[in-house]
Amino acid sequence: MKINMDRLLLDIEKYAQYGKSEHGGVTRPSFSKADHDVRKLFIQELKDMGLLVTIDGAANIWGRRKGTGKKQGTIVIGSHLDSVPNGGKYDGPLGVLMAKELIKTLIENNIHLDHDLEIVSFTAEESNDFNLSTFGSRAFAGKLTAEVLEKASDSKGTLIKDELEKAGGGLDKFPVMAEAAKQKKAFIELHIEQGKRLESRGLSMAVINKFVGMYRSTVQVIGQANHSGTTMMEHRNDALSAAAEMVLEVERQCREDQTDLVGTVGKLNVFPNATNIIPGHVTFNFEVRGENGQHIHDIVNSIRERWKEIARKRQVDIQEDVFLDQDPIELDHDIVHVLECTAEEMNEPCITFASMAVHDAAHMAAVTKSTMIFVKSIGGKSHCPEEYSVPHDIEKAGNLMLCGVINIDKELDKEYKSVTMVTRVNN
Amino acid sequence: MKINMDRLLLDIEKYAQYGKSEHGGVTRPSFSKADHDVRKLFIQELKDMGLLVTIDGAANIWGRRKGTGKKQGTIVIGSHLDSVPNGGKYDGPLGVLMAKELIKTLIENNIHLDHDLEIVSFTAEESNDFNLSTFGSRAFAGKLTAEVLEKASDSKGTLIKDELEKAGGGLDKFPVMAEAAKQKKAFIELHIEQGKRLESRGLSMAVINKFVGMYRSTVQVIGQANHSGTTMMEHRNDALSAAAEMVLEVERQCREDQTDLVGTVGKLNVFPNATNIIPGHVTFNFEVRGENGQHIHDIVNSIRERWKEIARKRQVDIQEDVFLDQDPIELDHDIVHVLECTAEEMNEPCITFASMAVHDAAHMAAVTKSTMIFVKSIGGKSHCPEEYSVPHDIEKAGNLMLCGVINIDKELDKEYKSVTMVTRVNN
Repeated sequence: MKINMDRLLLDIEKYAQYGKSEHGGVTRPSFSKADHDVRKLFIQELKDMGLLVTIDGAANIWGRRKGTGKKQGTIVIGSHLDSVPNGGKYDGPLGVLMAKELIKTLIENNIHLDHDLEIVSFTAEESNDFNLSTFGSRAFAGKLTAEVLEKASDSKGTLIKDELEKAGGGLDKFPVMAEAAKQKKAFIELHIEQGKRLESRGLSMAVINKFVGMYRSTVQVIGQANHSGTTMMEHRNDALSAAAEMVLEVERQCREDQTDLVGTVGKLNVFPNATNIIPGHVTFNFEVRGENGQHIHDIVNSIRERWKEIARKRQVDIQEDVFLDQDPIELDHDIVHVLECTAEEMNEPCITFASMAVHDAAHMAAVTKSTMIFVKSIGGKSHCPEEYSVPHDIEKAGNLMLCGVINIDKELDKEYKSVTMVTRVNN
Repeated sequence: MKINMDRLLLDIEKYAQYGKSEHGGVTRPSFSKADHDVRKLFIQELKDMGLLVTIDGAANIWGRRKGTGKKQGTIVIGSHLDSVPNGGKYDGPLGVLMAKELIKTLIENNIHLDHDLEIVSFTAEESNDFNLSTFGSRAFAGKLTAEVLEKASDSKGTLIKDELEKAGGGLDKFPVMAEAAKQKKAFIELHIEQGKRLESRGLSMAVINKFVGMYRSTVQVIGQANHSGTTMMEHRNDALSAAAEMVLEVERQCREDQTDLVGTVGKLNVFPNATNIIPGHVTFNFEVRGENGQHIHDIVNSIRERWKEIARKRQVDIQEDVFLDQDPIELDHDIVHVLECTAEEMNEPCITFASMAVHDAAHMAAVTKSTMIFVKSIGGKSHCPEEYSVPHDIEKAGNLMLCGVINIDKELDKEYKSVTMVTRVNN
């Protein structure tokens, strides 16, 4: 039994027409016209497949296929249908459409799981004007309460509660949504990798066992603004030169690190920012992500020590304000292990590693046993029209999910014995 | 014969009341209320001293004291009365008020020069919203024509020609101004140094023999924007890290240079400038100033070679657009030499070096023999309320200007023999 790849590819193209932008991109933020249109299409298709469709408080769309009734609760598969502005066809939709394809394949083969099987499309996973990314899964996991959301609005003053109602959700449905969350027994999300780890290893897919921890701070570098002509080189306290050394120190230490830890300075502003004035003040945001919380703190401390030396040497002041310090999220060993074993049975090379980015599954992990399957991204590109995964890789990952879901259905509720059946390559 | 230092200090404080800002600063941009008020005061004071006051097309204020009539043309002394926002009391006013003090001293001592002696206060020397710094001297030197200025306006759409008329100038007076320029025989401007070269050498003053050349370009660094989490360190083309290396290369090469050359990156912008996106594009402005045009080009080329290596290594593209490439301006050797000799006669330690910044004298050098006297700035500070020069240093520089003007009056029109009478320390 295999998924129907031709049908899936047609489906990807069909959905990419909603919010189609120039050069083959997709612009479909949640609550946009294109999003409302694609929601209508999706709901109708689920109904046509015979699924029981519900929309929860967060406007997440659910479609349920009854199981044999031998086991309680539901196995959930899905992702999100919204996109960033001028994004690609795969980030989000691939996981939702693969879930749909998987259910169609089961229906065609007249296979019923012991658990009910649900497809989900989460609302507003991408960064958005409400400053509420992974909105749908966060709300579903109870991390965003109706009280907090009552007054949440975007930059134009549009209330999210009004947008939710237009999409079939609503804050009044939050208590029911919290009850529904208790029924979930597993969540599996298929998503493109958005990086080059699979490509550089020549692999099609990965199983995700962890979400990296994340440290973010804002750093102020305070030197002395001065005239760029009359201030000799030896009399300067140039905040930009100091910041430049600090930026390179982040890069150097994270490069020399032997794990998949990454460190970035993505945002940097110079003051007063004039051609003929030596910069007196620079602010930048510093981010480190890694699989191990202690290791993140160790490298942050090590970078900080070098920064202090740079500040001493250059006679500038530095101040750091931490605004995010989030531990890694370990995913359920059992469900990850079932997927690893399934790949082994299928004789498909597959690696297990951490996701470097947050996905809906990171929040679903607070609700139920969760994991993800990553598909190789060509060139590691995402959030752009060039985002692409080849059908061959998508097909392998889809079949892993198909067989994985069947195995998870069997293994759930068993007293699981953690026997190493495949070699875990954990990096 | 010496200037009256007590009177000058009172005068500095009196003028600093016009546009007085918090913490002892001065906010007096040209054409502001404070500027109009200080113009009225200045004109009245010149008239009270018996000078013939005229306002030229560029609204520069001139006051003339007749000489013996033995020599044709006029010797001009002065600077500017406008300030940057929240600037200090000295940058500009010191040169104008010293010129006034000098003429008062001559009047009190009943000394008449063979040439007519003129005081000038130039309009809008500082950077301003019209993007026309050193406006008054540039216009006087014929570098800004009435045709070009006809439509020049600030960011609010205010026409400079209207502002000139309110201040007693006007584009219709430009032809007369051009005729007046032909009568000038010498220009001497006293100004604070705005740097630390005098302070670090323990000297009170300097004679200026040159204005540095200036090279300015805008540099684009084009890398690849990408997800800060999913893009491993080895898969990045981070435009900010590349720019950081380039900025440090500017600093390194200019520091290692053994001349007074300076290089600065004062303005830098990052795109898209978000915490979780690896910078794909950085633009920065690059400036080099130095006494020798060839040397500026040599170091720019050397920096550019290293930039190319950085770009190759990091697989980013760089593009550079030069928007200023100005040769150094050599000042008249004779007039510089008279000031040097005067300091020698007075037994006052004095150095001769280049001005690292542009002043009105740089434009007056296109009209007549010009030079400057710099006074030590404490801590090299300027364009801020903390701008300060000690009375002791101001007095020495003032007396050098007083005796220097008397000597220049004698030496002008002579066949000058360039005999080295003092040791020139040229660095």
